[in-house]
Amino acid sequence: MSSVAIAPGRLFGIGVGPGDPDLMSVKAARLIAETLTVAYFAARNRPSIARGVARHLLTDLHREIRIEYPLTIERAAPDDAVYEQLLVGCYDAAAGRIEHELVQGHDVAVLCEGDPFFYGSYTYVHNRLAGRFETTVVPGIPSLVAGAAAISQPLACGDEVLSVLSGVLSVPELTNALGNCDAAVIIKLGRNLPRVRQAVAAADLLERAFYIEHASSDRQLCCPLAQADLSRAPYFSMVVIPSAAASRR
Amino acid sequence: MSSVAIAPGRLFGIGVGPGDPDLMSVKAARLIAETLTVAYFAARNRPSIARGVARHLLTDLHREIRIEYPLTIERAAPDDAVYEQLLVGCYDAAAGRIEHELVQGHDVAVLCEGDPFFYGSYTYVHNRLAGRFETTVVPGIPSLVAGAAAISQPLACGDEVLSVLSGVLSVPELTNALGNCDAAVIIKLGRNLPRVRQAVAAADLLERAFYIEHASSDRQLCCPLAQADLSRAPYFSMVVIPSAAASRR
Repeated sequence: MSSVAIAPGRLFGIGVGPGDPDLMSVKAARLIAETLTVAYFAARNRPSIARGVARHLLTDLHREIRIEYPLTIERAAPDDAVYEQLLVGCYDAAAGRIEHELVQGHDVAVLCEGDPFFYGSYTYVHNRLAGRFETTVVPGIPSLVAGAAAISQPLACGDEVLSVLSGVLSVPELTNALGNCDAAVIIKLGRNLPRVRQAVAAADLLERAFYIEHASSDRQLCCPLAQADLSRAPYFSMVVIPSAAASRR
Repeated sequence: MSSVAIAPGRLFGIGVGPGDPDLMSVKAARLIAETLTVAYFAARNRPSIARGVARHLLTDLHREIRIEYPLTIERAAPDDAVYEQLLVGCYDAAAGRIEHELVQGHDVAVLCEGDPFFYGSYTYVHNRLAGRFETTVVPGIPSLVAGAAAISQPLACGDEVLSVLSGVLSVPELTNALGNCDAAVIIKLGRNLPRVRQAVAAADLLERAFYIEHASSDRQLCCPLAQADLSRAPYFSMVVIPSAAASRR
């Protein structure tokens, strides 16, 4: 019997949104239910956040590819070359496992917390595979707008400059960046939170700043940054400095 | 017969997402179907974009409050005091009409394109009413992540600074802001597009920049900014300068 050519599977990068399963888009929910091979990232020894958001859609028919980060990201120093090499190896291996499914003709849905292209690890899978397989990215609600909804404060309006900053930046870099915008969101907190608070205070923005973790999920917690416990921020938390101009119109 | 106190209605600010009705969240779709008084903004003599995204959910039972902007926003100069006064009057009147429904005990869902708190007009309704009525904001997918999905390019990753800028800013302001970030999205284009292109070129970013209109909708159009027709950009279009670092890992 001659071999039959198999059409390769399709790759889907799917944003599952910030945490509340009901904040997933209709399209994301449908594609996850229909795509029987799903992949997701997870910190070592911890449940995957993206899988948790979508778990009500996963059935016994689904096959799951769990991709573990080499370490919890929050423990890495920003210029750690060894860690960088471990991460590249992690993304190479993840892309390899997904490619193995695609070449066998299986569609693969990569579940991403928030939006796939908004500071997400999906980016590195995409860059390794999108050129060779049919690929669709389904946008999701990024955590920053869920954070604004959580504190019931407009994020930005009118002609304001809104910047998204990483908590891994140094205190001078953060302070400077905060001086160049009108509203800001600082992500990737974890153990960076004490330095982030220092930068926000140095930029004279502490009174306007909020600390938010797990926005929209059943573990949501919000408070003024000035009152936040600096010792225990999870990686999926953020500082929001909302619009100052919104109340002027 | 003595009068019976009526419990006031609840206000919902609902993000309907960037344009594709299937990119609305499950929660937004459910609330719109259930809330029989809906309000939305529209440019004069034009259909409301937010209503268009949600129209499959509206029935004969729904009552609709259409709020017209005093002029198409794209025609206003940034420091036009007369226009500013007209806008404030428009928001006051909109809040008044919605309040009239709320005090009669009707819940009101304000439909917002993208996310309600991300450069949305809902902000001004919220600021006028949220203190006095039970209010819930349901986040939506903002157009910027739909734009990144449309061009299949990661928006930002790692420790990049991402800035959201308004096309109403001056060329020097835009050029300077583009110099202070790693990736950027410029919204509110309309007739500002020629100046935006000039600023992007001055910041030496023209090669990386894309022009996108009506991202995710059936009218979606993307091209390199260098090739965009500068004379006809709708207000709901954007320039995206995606991540430069994404391909390095």
